[in-house]
Amino acid sequence: MRTVIIGSGAGGLTTASTIRKYDKEMEIVVITKEKYIAYSPCAIPYVIGGEIESFENIVMHTPEEYKTNRNIDVITEAEVLDVNSEENKLKYALNGEEKELEYDYLVIATGGTPFIPPIEGATLDGVFKVRTIEDGMKIKDWIKNCKKAIVAGAGAIGLEMAYGLKEKGLDVTVVEMAPQIFPRGLDPDMAEKVMKYLENEGIKFIMGKPVGKIVGKEKVEGVVIDGELMDADLVIMATGVRPNIELAKKAGCEIGKWAIKVNEKMQTSIPNIYAVGDCVEVIDFVTKQNTMSPFGTTAVRQGKVAGKNIVGIESEFPPVLNAMVSKIGDLEIGGTGNTEISANQNGIETIVGRAKALTRARYYPGGKTIEIKLICDKNKKIIGCQIIGGERVAERVDAVSIAILKETTCEELANMEFCYAPPVSMVVDPLAIVAEDACEKFKE
Amino acid sequence: MRTVIIGSGAGGLTTASTIRKYDKEMEIVVITKEKYIAYSPCAIPYVIGGEIESFENIVMHTPEEYKTNRNIDVITEAEVLDVNSEENKLKYALNGEEKELEYDYLVIATGGTPFIPPIEGATLDGVFKVRTIEDGMKIKDWIKNCKKAIVAGAGAIGLEMAYGLKEKGLDVTVVEMAPQIFPRGLDPDMAEKVMKYLENEGIKFIMGKPVGKIVGKEKVEGVVIDGELMDADLVIMATGVRPNIELAKKAGCEIGKWAIKVNEKMQTSIPNIYAVGDCVEVIDFVTKQNTMSPFGTTAVRQGKVAGKNIVGIESEFPPVLNAMVSKIGDLEIGGTGNTEISANQNGIETIVGRAKALTRARYYPGGKTIEIKLICDKNKKIIGCQIIGGERVAERVDAVSIAILKETTCEELANMEFCYAPPVSMVVDPLAIVAEDACEKFKE
Repeated sequence: MRTVIIGSGAGGLTTASTIRKYDKEMEIVVITKEKYIAYSPCAIPYVIGGEIESFENIVMHTPEEYKTNRNIDVITEAEVLDVNSEENKLKYALNGEEKELEYDYLVIATGGTPFIPPIEGATLDGVFKVRTIEDGMKIKDWIKNCKKAIVAGAGAIGLEMAYGLKEKGLDVTVVEMAPQIFPRGLDPDMAEKVMKYLENEGIKFIMGKPVGKIVGKEKVEGVVIDGELMDADLVIMATGVRPNIELAKKAGCEIGKWAIKVNEKMQTSIPNIYAVGDCVEVIDFVTKQNTMSPFGTTAVRQGKVAGKNIVGIESEFPPVLNAMVSKIGDLEIGGTGNTEISANQNGIETIVGRAKALTRARYYPGGKTIEIKLICDKNKKIIGCQIIGGERVAERVDAVSIAILKETTCEELANMEFCYAPPVSMVVDPLAIVAEDACEKFKE
Repeated sequence: MRTVIIGSGAGGLTTASTIRKYDKEMEIVVITKEKYIAYSPCAIPYVIGGEIESFENIVMHTPEEYKTNRNIDVITEAEVLDVNSEENKLKYALNGEEKELEYDYLVIATGGTPFIPPIEGATLDGVFKVRTIEDGMKIKDWIKNCKKAIVAGAGAIGLEMAYGLKEKGLDVTVVEMAPQIFPRGLDPDMAEKVMKYLENEGIKFIMGKPVGKIVGKEKVEGVVIDGELMDADLVIMATGVRPNIELAKKAGCEIGKWAIKVNEKMQTSIPNIYAVGDCVEVIDFVTKQNTMSPFGTTAVRQGKVAGKNIVGIESEFPPVLNAMVSKIGDLEIGGTGNTEISANQNGIETIVGRAKALTRARYYPGGKTIEIKLICDKNKKIIGCQIIGGERVAERVDAVSIAILKETTCEELANMEFCYAPPVSMVVDPLAIVAEDACEKFKE
């Protein structure tokens, strides 16, 4: 029996490792366009910024290690050209040669591709996307002689990159089409707080406007925004990611509203073809609508589910909250579940609690401010949360994720038990405070 | 209408503030033996150790502020002598005078008193308990000329004090009757790890033995342990706390197995007398047995419940997990729910998951080790957790508390969504790893 996995990101490699964990016999082949595998693309901005010393550091394993330690074959720098799902085989190109490979199970883990808007100058030297480690290496090399950077897109990756470039001494302007930063993860009021912090750190913002065109002879010399030319010797396109669904289409897999359709087992419409990661669509826990979940954590969890089902262990991938966290400078920004806006857009009436508190006892040195917005539906059930603070944000996001998934009300959370010691928390936890604030709002 | 509250700890003052929040008319009188109010006794070790500059810093409010800002009368350095619950009045002593006060509601928030074993020399100068801010002040003053300290008792307060004294340059030995440190909060295997850390930090331990007697003429000169005399010029008695239930007895309130009996409303057997904090007994969420919950957080939560019920807002105090956290040196130690040992003692069969992981992505600088023990009952329900690590322990304890209170299984936790960014977490959270380990154990 042979499982072929297309793609070496978190989803593909986790599927491979999970199969091997439970099945020592299965032949496992990973085919990937990439040269480097087993790294976290989320780390790229922190290498650029200098927190992580080099790109070599973020590569966890080589293809050789996969072969030696887990008997998984990884074919790098190869491109799958076609999938014939009737005959259970695929064609791929390697070193200019076309090859064929049969499979018993196929896993499509083709991820996503950064969406570069079709504007003039997008192919000039000095215009980069941020997806692969090689993108990162090229950027690190390029910025040595740079002074002015434009970052298009104010999602997590765009802002993390902007901060990293600023740390390297560049003059950085972020351009975002939406009227707010973190347009998907945060509500405008919370996004505003993060933007103020970043402005204080010296990053400039142009909001509600797209990049019109990029100008330059061979390399970037400037960017036109709203008719005005701005000098720039570096442009980062962090304008979103589109799922790679071409191969799934060629194989005949059903495509949903956003990406490849899969069931809870991560199975596509073709029973022996699974799909995981940024190329599939999932179900939103709160709205029950189909959505995307382009996170490494999601890909890992889906890979485990796909791998188990392939070896015959029943496993289901549950609906998602799209919990996220980012660290930009000294600020941690996190969120889970629905924003107020997305809930309202989905017809869910909301009541919102807010709290501004400290991460340690008031008198204990080093405490940081933490601000929380808690979103409840009209039955008091918690459906979302956004947290911004100087420390200890991620685990609070996780605590709220558990609360949402276990259908907890704000009353229950307000009355829950939180541990306390002056160096690590307040006697009344910020989560209890925000839950109590939400309870009060229900009385109004 | 008048509510009289006996005691100015977290429970008493929270009750007072909660009543005032909802009722602007009620006359509220707090009577306390103490001179200073509104401070966290948990902060004392950190003032001794020097992390917090002075005892003045940890006092949050003065009696005058309570009067001015909330119209709450606080009578300090006064002792309640008797409660006459038939006539709804009490007698107290203030400045040598005996006074009487009538009440409509009485709240007993008398806390606990450190238990000093009846050994020779326990009243010598240089023998201290750690309960009130004045205890702390006396210790801070005394240690100026000290070289060798004995700390009796290896619970959180004992160990935090031991570490603080060590930071001040003292030679410190901890003596504990039980065979392990944190005898109530941790299982022996986890306690062992903390003890090793503290031994590396230079703290000595004598386990499984009591302090026999304390010797000295006027002040402490040594301690006899197992027949052997050890030099010491300071002895800290951190040998546990007994609930102060005398006044409740005088009032005629029913006493339970451990302390004052209360219902979910924090009402004693006498309907207009409530009790909160270290002097009451509560129900353990996991075992359903009566237990104590001597934590500031519990007192605060109980004070809110009592206060609300007194003003006519229905509120219930739920069964407890006794979630706790401590920070000693660079180590955070936390736990919630049952230990393996206490669960087994209560007849609950357990399956245990373990994980040792990192708090940040492997390649991100500054990540710390974190070790987790997850305890499940035979139906896979999570019933307890212990965590030791260099950072981000407290919030993970809280996340598990929510999981336990919402009756989550290890399978659910293993499959739950955790947010991820390299500077603040691993792509698979340590909590997911430990839950998965527990799932695997069920298969064995």
